[in-house]
Amino acid sequence: MTAQFRTPEAKMIELPTPCLLFLGDTTHLSYAKTAMGLKDWAPELCLAEIALPAATVTTGLPRMTVVEAHAAGARSIVIGVAAEGGQIRDNWVPLLVEALEAGLDIVSGMHSRVEDVPALYAAVQRTGRRVIDVRRPPANIAVATGERRTGKRLLTVGTDCALGKKYTALAIARAFAARGVDCDFRATGQTGIMIAGNGIPIDSVVADFVAGAAEMLSPAAAADHWDVVEGQGSLYHPAYASVSLGLLHGTQPDVIVVCHEAGRTEIIGCPGYALPTLDDTIALNLMHARRTNPAARCAGVSLNTASLSAADAAELIAETAAALGMPVADPIRGGAAFDGLVAACLA
Amino acid sequence: MTAQFRTPEAKMIELPTPCLLFLGDTTHLSYAKTAMGLKDWAPELCLAEIALPAATVTTGLPRMTVVEAHAAGARSIVIGVAAEGGQIRDNWVPLLVEALEAGLDIVSGMHSRVEDVPALYAAVQRTGRRVIDVRRPPANIAVATGERRTGKRLLTVGTDCALGKKYTALAIARAFAARGVDCDFRATGQTGIMIAGNGIPIDSVVADFVAGAAEMLSPAAAADHWDVVEGQGSLYHPAYASVSLGLLHGTQPDVIVVCHEAGRTEIIGCPGYALPTLDDTIALNLMHARRTNPAARCAGVSLNTASLSAADAAELIAETAAALGMPVADPIRGGAAFDGLVAACLA
Repeated sequence: MTAQFRTPEAKMIELPTPCLLFLGDTTHLSYAKTAMGLKDWAPELCLAEIALPAATVTTGLPRMTVVEAHAAGARSIVIGVAAEGGQIRDNWVPLLVEALEAGLDIVSGMHSRVEDVPALYAAVQRTGRRVIDVRRPPANIAVATGERRTGKRLLTVGTDCALGKKYTALAIARAFAARGVDCDFRATGQTGIMIAGNGIPIDSVVADFVAGAAEMLSPAAAADHWDVVEGQGSLYHPAYASVSLGLLHGTQPDVIVVCHEAGRTEIIGCPGYALPTLDDTIALNLMHARRTNPAARCAGVSLNTASLSAADAAELIAETAAALGMPVADPIRGGAAFDGLVAACLA
Repeated sequence: MTAQFRTPEAKMIELPTPCLLFLGDTTHLSYAKTAMGLKDWAPELCLAEIALPAATVTTGLPRMTVVEAHAAGARSIVIGVAAEGGQIRDNWVPLLVEALEAGLDIVSGMHSRVEDVPALYAAVQRTGRRVIDVRRPPANIAVATGERRTGKRLLTVGTDCALGKKYTALAIARAFAARGVDCDFRATGQTGIMIAGNGIPIDSVVADFVAGAAEMLSPAAAADHWDVVEGQGSLYHPAYASVSLGLLHGTQPDVIVVCHEAGRTEIIGCPGYALPTLDDTIALNLMHARRTNPAARCAGVSLNTASLSAADAAELIAETAAALGMPVADPIRGGAAFDGLVAACLA
């Protein structure tokens, strides 16, 4: 957990560490983004992983039982996997009960609360273990005012969910810090909050207050200070566009970076919903962004090329940059392309 | 309360009636839309009004004290006024306590809960009166699927808040029913829910579930059945656009009607935010609507001309219709223009 990603004055969510990462029964890497993000950005906190037999994904960490993990020093089990609607699935419950009985606390970023699952609630009461919920927004969120704030802000937006908006924001914040820029990573989702130690779980905020939460998350700051804000969802997503638009309006970004995954053609979980083009995504996000910050601009595209070979990725990145006339990079691959994207953000 | 606006199978919110309408200390008619709406659409429920000395608006009903109203038969006091963020203002509390002590229940559609105001909570406990909260959404809302549903849907959208989206939906539903069309008014705000007896307070729903709530509110129906859905906010509102977009995506409207107030040039409560043009509002709403219903079309414009003379209103309506090339009408004035708008909705 990197000091630069913390805001000392904010109230911290403290994770009991090290953690055992729970992958559920997922067969889709995108649904395991919490576990993957923790392993990538806070590896010193991650001891091992555990999954149900049906799961096909892995973080690459050693697999342990809950008893083995506790004996090896683990202090919590992190629900590192998402299911439709953020529900705790029934078939996850027996393993989570075992974890409590083995002496682990539960760290959860799920929509459904651990204590609303009767068997888990009973096990928490019986074992005296704790539940750390990184999805409970603060109680004092105000309605957005739309007033302009001092300081600079960058927001990652996307063509869909689960394709690299958090990772891109973290990579850009790290690159800004490496260049001596005064910046904060601003977390809006469960994994980001776990990594940053603070933030607002924006999709758990009541709809009327989403833009207000985004204003609160990136408050007025020194003129040369940057907030690098983790985006959520997509303006084109039939379920989550509401969150994306409130976050965009409230953040008042000076710069947006559009995130996309090479080869993805359809919205995850929504058969028949084609992904928007990058051109359309840039134009629509800028149009809405300029409602609250007329100077908003797109610095470039973050292209997730995890499914491609290095050569194919480099070719696609170059082609896309030429077609759009702006920097395109895969932050995971880094290199000159990513340096160019970072420079364009600060230009 | 008109039978056609009720869905018999849904769980009803039952108001203790008749009601005393509380106007707070408001000086802006738009903030009193709950009281005005109840008086317009459910006049048989409204006995009298009460306001603090600073208030300058009136429903036209007789003014009574809480004791007089109770003696005259009132059974509840309806908080019929909105404040920024839906808060119960401190200076309203003494009168609301008096109302409880006089034997009235409180009907509230405010964001802040009556029981979270210590003096009100204590008075409720002391008097044994009830609080009817029309802003608590159902607990079983699912994430939107984006799947197309059978039946027809109309959604009112707008250039801003508080300019006639509820009124327009009610007037269109009434006109549909008068033409023998099988239809339901679907309420999304406190006043609409009070009038309809059911609905979902969409801006109180957690952001991730807004589109899902809109899907639930207007479920699959017979091919010739119409849901006429009350819109909320505006895609251009710096605080509330999040709600508007989720409602638009989830409703999957076949028809939108764009609502605007003649002469309004700035978003209410947001100095410096110019109102969008009607052309832009139509285009942006259709663009987003077509994400979930490619056949979405705009049937016309509902123009609130309350501030104009009859002659000026007729002239503006005709001019606007000619400029846009579509029906424009003020539902409050009715007449041939409104008949034309209703016909275009059903065309």
